[in-house]
Amino acid sequence: MQMSLPCVKQPDVITCKAAVAWGAGKPLVIEEVNVNPPQAMEIRIKVVCTSLCRSDITAWESQAIFPRIFGHEATGIVESVGQGVTEFTEGDHVLTVFIGECGKCRQCTSGKSNICEVLGLERRGVMHCDQRTRFSINGEPIYHYCAVSSFSEYTVVHSGCAVKISSVVPLEKVCLLSCGVAAGLGAAWNVADISNGSSVVIFGLGTVGLSVAQGAKLRGASQIIGVDTNPEKGENAKAFGITAFINPHDSKDPIQQVIKNLTGGGADYSFECIGDTGMVTTALQACCDGWGLTVTLGVPKVKPEVTAHYGIFLTGRTLKGSLFGGWKPKSHLPSLVDMYTKKEIQVDEYITHNLPFEDVNKAFNLMREGKCLRCVIHMAK
Amino acid sequence: MQMSLPCVKQPDVITCKAAVAWGAGKPLVIEEVNVNPPQAMEIRIKVVCTSLCRSDITAWESQAIFPRIFGHEATGIVESVGQGVTEFTEGDHVLTVFIGECGKCRQCTSGKSNICEVLGLERRGVMHCDQRTRFSINGEPIYHYCAVSSFSEYTVVHSGCAVKISSVVPLEKVCLLSCGVAAGLGAAWNVADISNGSSVVIFGLGTVGLSVAQGAKLRGASQIIGVDTNPEKGENAKAFGITAFINPHDSKDPIQQVIKNLTGGGADYSFECIGDTGMVTTALQACCDGWGLTVTLGVPKVKPEVTAHYGIFLTGRTLKGSLFGGWKPKSHLPSLVDMYTKKEIQVDEYITHNLPFEDVNKAFNLMREGKCLRCVIHMAK
Repeated sequence: MQMSLPCVKQPDVITCKAAVAWGAGKPLVIEEVNVNPPQAMEIRIKVVCTSLCRSDITAWESQAIFPRIFGHEATGIVESVGQGVTEFTEGDHVLTVFIGECGKCRQCTSGKSNICEVLGLERRGVMHCDQRTRFSINGEPIYHYCAVSSFSEYTVVHSGCAVKISSVVPLEKVCLLSCGVAAGLGAAWNVADISNGSSVVIFGLGTVGLSVAQGAKLRGASQIIGVDTNPEKGENAKAFGITAFINPHDSKDPIQQVIKNLTGGGADYSFECIGDTGMVTTALQACCDGWGLTVTLGVPKVKPEVTAHYGIFLTGRTLKGSLFGGWKPKSHLPSLVDMYTKKEIQVDEYITHNLPFEDVNKAFNLMREGKCLRCVIHMAK
Repeated sequence: MQMSLPCVKQPDVITCKAAVAWGAGKPLVIEEVNVNPPQAMEIRIKVVCTSLCRSDITAWESQAIFPRIFGHEATGIVESVGQGVTEFTEGDHVLTVFIGECGKCRQCTSGKSNICEVLGLERRGVMHCDQRTRFSINGEPIYHYCAVSSFSEYTVVHSGCAVKISSVVPLEKVCLLSCGVAAGLGAAWNVADISNGSSVVIFGLGTVGLSVAQGAKLRGASQIIGVDTNPEKGENAKAFGITAFINPHDSKDPIQQVIKNLTGGGADYSFECIGDTGMVTTALQACCDGWGLTVTLGVPKVKPEVTAHYGIFLTGRTLKGSLFGGWKPKSHLPSLVDMYTKKEIQVDEYITHNLPFEDVNKAFNLMREGKCLRCVIHMAK
């Protein structure tokens, strides 16, 4: 006897608006794009809000893969699911994540890493499973960015690159937990494991740096020194825990010396949140002998090599990298969202601007000019 | 009533034999030197045994301070003590140490560092307290090395740079705990904190590298891979725990790739024990994503800058320095000596040669030619 298979509605191609980057540094163009149905283990998401992160800009200014749809810090609602997806159904609210969690590889099962071997940092602009794109215009591929591509009304992501959240959580706020705020808090808590009463110095006071500050404050750090060449960054930094602001342009002495003087020999922890490998060296020098820990979070805009004198390590310093603050997205982000709903962490305070999707280039300009922390881009309803 | 002060015997200048290095790379010359009495908080030691460490050679080949008396891995007997010394008396058996422990500074009292602020690494060839030497020939100063200068029948060290040991411990063996063997064990235990069942790769199989191997073995590491370009190093390495030996000259593939293949994606821990900053980069690459830890122990002979792509850190690796294996000499070395007396650690096995003091240059040649692990130099009785 032959069994008839249950009738499954096959999702169609969706045509919608997306902000396409046609070349390095060229203003995005809102285009009509085709978004293919999700393949096996993928989901298609109606993007609700997406905030702009500095690494979108860095990639847009420098990377060679075009045409491309940027955006990776986002919230949305599941529109359809591909074969084999049981974790999500249509209508689920989700956070997107730029590094996924397969839950099965050596890294995911280690209990000490968030660098998933299957859904780790995707650099080539294509989907993990078939190395192809889900976006196209007139049959020509439009490439993905960071496995998310949220500057589009609809996007397709691997089901391992999304985290289900309660439908009562405000999507226009928690998109910041999709990357920047979570990355900073995690660097402070998971990677550095900042201890009570310690001294911390943070290079770069964007959203990530100020989230490290928040994390340090919540851990009871007694000194949280912020360093930024933009004098405007100092004003609002106190609200996130910064106890002293230094603008290197205002100082005759090398910045590491100023910090050594302020901390009585060097900070316990330093964080490089600029994306300047030269500043990693300064961050190491700003730390104390014996146990000074430097965490590097930034994605460099130019020179990708970190260079430091061996003596800086031999005298007891440690250099550690942090990608997404060590969070395993599926295992850990729900509890971070919970902390937000219980008002245990600040998130709303990083949102300095809100813009409609058609003004996405304004958001780029605001960030390039250092005028915003997070600008949330709202898709049309 | 005036009290008469107790009569204290004032030590005299001692004239004795010392191996003086007159210039970079020039054979040492056994000379008659004057050794001044110990000043306040110093002790004068009759050296019994001193073994040759690779960093003696590195400094002799490269450093600018001459004339100088090298040697820093030693045992001896206290001959006299300076004012204020209560910890030692004439006749005490001691280990010398190249980084001291004042017990009072921020580092010593932190409980997490051995980088003493007062008696830390001494680079200028003079005593800590008055920046002068205790050695001279015809009134001209002969400089110290690493605060020890044990290639002399008598030497003066700060009392914070010596550790009292039981008179029953064989001085001709435990001198190796003064630097090399202790440095390797400490890097494995204190700095890396190697866990049971883990994979370890060690670059450089001299005494320090093979002591890391011993430390890894005692911690239950399941894979201990040794890398050395000297094919003879592979033969004896198994006795210290090495489970696989790789000679990079025998491999077509880059060594980091060979290690990734052997370990299923990269080692949990890697140790740079050569003193080659380029190899630190390789050691980082040989570690796994997520939690790979590279410990750098070596003192570079040439390029002092460590350089590595930021991505190596961003994907979860850590680089940490180890000076003397994190041991605080006074607090920790006595327990290490105890472990030796209880046969819980191997020490004797690293001694491949014994030579009388007058053959000190032979010891230098043996090490430069890679023919020895430790060569113990015995002073005349």
